[in-house]
Amino acid sequence: MTPSPEEAPLEIYGFWRSQAMYRLRVALKLKGVAYAEIPVNLDGGEQDTPEFRRISPMGSVPALIADGTALTQSLAILEWLEETHPEPPLLPADPLGRARVRSIASVVVADSHPLIVPRVKRYLTEHAGFDAARWKAWQTYFFTAGLQGVEARLAAGGGTGCFCHGDKPTIADICLAGLAAGAKTFGIAVADVPTVDRIVDACLALPAFDASRADRQADFPG
Amino acid sequence: MTPSPEEAPLEIYGFWRSQAMYRLRVALKLKGVAYAEIPVNLDGGEQDTPEFRRISPMGSVPALIADGTALTQSLAILEWLEETHPEPPLLPADPLGRARVRSIASVVVADSHPLIVPRVKRYLTEHAGFDAARWKAWQTYFFTAGLQGVEARLAAGGGTGCFCHGDKPTIADICLAGLAAGAKTFGIAVADVPTVDRIVDACLALPAFDASRADRQADFPG
Repeated sequence: MTPSPEEAPLEIYGFWRSQAMYRLRVALKLKGVAYAEIPVNLDGGEQDTPEFRRISPMGSVPALIADGTALTQSLAILEWLEETHPEPPLLPADPLGRARVRSIASVVVADSHPLIVPRVKRYLTEHAGFDAARWKAWQTYFFTAGLQGVEARLAAGGGTGCFCHGDKPTIADICLAGLAAGAKTFGIAVADVPTVDRIVDACLALPAFDASRADRQADFPG
Repeated sequence: MTPSPEEAPLEIYGFWRSQAMYRLRVALKLKGVAYAEIPVNLDGGEQDTPEFRRISPMGSVPALIADGTALTQSLAILEWLEETHPEPPLLPADPLGRARVRSIASVVVADSHPLIVPRVKRYLTEHAGFDAARWKAWQTYFFTAGLQGVEARLAAGGGTGCFCHGDKPTIADICLAGLAAGAKTFGIAVADVPTVDRIVDACLALPAFDASRADRQADFPG
């Protein structure tokens, strides 16, 4: 039996360690959408091959193939997923709630994560003489700023529940859990974020988050 | 005559030079939504006062007051504006088009702009010994990566028209014009981005973009 196009798994170019791919995995699993992850070895430079650049012009993962088009940038893909696969919702129904969730997600995706990606490490290593210790200090500074920034938002109320907004996971939790997982991967402990810690624990207890962990992916080098 | 709550201008805490505030100004003007910008002098540290932190826990601008709640993060506010003031639309109607526009916006908002903000400059100055020339080199590198990244996306087709997506301005154009304006403010010229240059020129010819320029704001120091 050939599956209909609706039933065929979504194809996504990803990488085990990618925080942006993690966000997408969790959302797809929460929504019960089948997908096939095609590994692009970022450590091996596979993102720079002409073949992959034809798919993703900037060489970024994740790149999700929809109707023959490659969608890039995790927040854009999460919004597309919400529009095309609305159940269960990963955004609240009311505009103010949606704004709050998207704002918390942006603190992670725009204010925190871009500072600790490989191309920044490369620049600092090549042009600012950063060694491992100075890179670790940089990572620690920006992971801390990000997680404490989210903590300030969550502790200020406005809708914080078992999760960032109410009692069901949203895009905000997905982004936050990814940032916390990234910090853990690099051995960075951030203190004084009790609300963040509580919510990340609630996320990690869910199968969709657990199965999306970097070390559970087929291309994880072990 | 007292204006009804619907007619009262939206209050937004902003700063003349803020690229994120620029995005919001353009969107509000394109949609014809009245607003009052309350300047927060980021050069004078006003974002760090307890009063402002009660409004915006991370001290970020823009912060838009809606129903007594401060909305933060420009992409989240742009989405809220689109949901609450849908005309004229700043996102296409189809999910794939919306994903493309949001993806181009994210290349600016998540991959480019966060690298060249004051807190990054501060870290590099204090902990990496950056002087003005090395900061300028850093800025040039990341402005160039961002604008060339958008160029690669636009030149690859998929919907590029007079503007980033079709023939009307969208959120993608708003973010792109802000990045280009930022580069210009800092005296950084980026070569080999003909599609970006053409689209930014088309944006700047529109009154909404022109009136949103940093140097046309009341708190511009001249």
